Amino acid sequence: MRDLRLEPLTQAAFAPFGEVLTPPAPGGRDYFDRALANGRPGAWPSLSIAHVDRAATLPLAAHRLERHPASSQSFVPLDAVGYLVVVAPARADGGPDIDGLRAFEAAAGQGVTYAMDVWHHPLTVFAAPARFAIWMWRDGTTGDDEFVDMPAVRFVAG
Amino acid sequence: MRDLRLEPLTQAAFAPFGEVLTPPAPGGRDYFDRALANGRPGAWPSLSIAHVDRAATLPLAAHRLERHPASSQSFVPLDAVGYLVVVAPARADGGPDIDGLRAFEAAAGQGVTYAMDVWHHPLTVFAAPARFAIWMWRDGTTGDDEFVDMPAVRFVAG
Repeated sequence: MRDLRLEPLTQAAFAPFGEVLTPPAPGGRDYFDRALANGRPGAWPSLSIAHVDRAATLPLAAHRLERHPASSQSFVPLDAVGYLVVVAPARADGGPDIDGLRAFEAAAGQGVTYAMDVWHHPLTVFAAPARFAIWMWRDGTTGDDEFVDMPAVRFVAG
Repeated sequence: MRDLRLEPLTQAAFAPFGEVLTPPAPGGRDYFDRALANGRPGAWPSLSIAHVDRAATLPLAAHRLERHPASSQSFVPLDAVGYLVVVAPARADGGPDIDGLRAFEAAAGQGVTYAMDVWHHPLTVFAAPARFAIWMWRDGTTGDDEFVDMPAVRFVAG
């Protein structure tokens, strides 16, 4: 099984895949304009809050990726937890390019937007409970979400 | 100056004005479908994070209300703070009905969606620092936000 070392989540490293959502300095307000991109006229913007009650530990074997072909997806943590951010570029046929997989550890307080159609690992946290506000566009069809199995990769501490 | 006592923020009491955003039980995920209502075809959905660095104390005199005539507005706290939620129904001429003013104190963890066109008090917290994720629709015009002065009202502990 291939090992992949977690990198710190920085805007520069993550830019090809989306945006890091970092709270502003005291007294400030920052806008994140890449959140809530939509590719379907019939979809609606959806706010949900998830309460993750199981924490993962490293090393962690992963087998599955997902993408939202017509919507960005933003996660903003409501608790101070680190979590896994794994992304892959798309191959010419649309599937994830496993050789190009990148793995990051989001620090406490960092949110993330996966750009539309970016392959990513389902939400996985390193401490629990971990509540997240989640924004995306949905239309209630199978086009909301797509999953693929991948050869197992083991994520290890950076 | 008129005194108005803060009520606890409950979904039943707040329903005429919007929605209370309460994190789900462990392992759960709840959807809040009244968030991100939009009345303008040219507007874009906007995610921002605000970092409020000044805390208010009760009693608190207030003089001003705002509304977003064409957008709902949702606040999700990223820190465990209580905050002020003040709303007013609209008069026939569109201005706020100060006699119908309602004042609530949101408990730690509660978010809130102000429905489109609902008069409300600007974000005011009872502890700082207090970071909030905020969603609304904007188009960069004066139609994004409207402010009115009102006769001073003093909010007092419930």
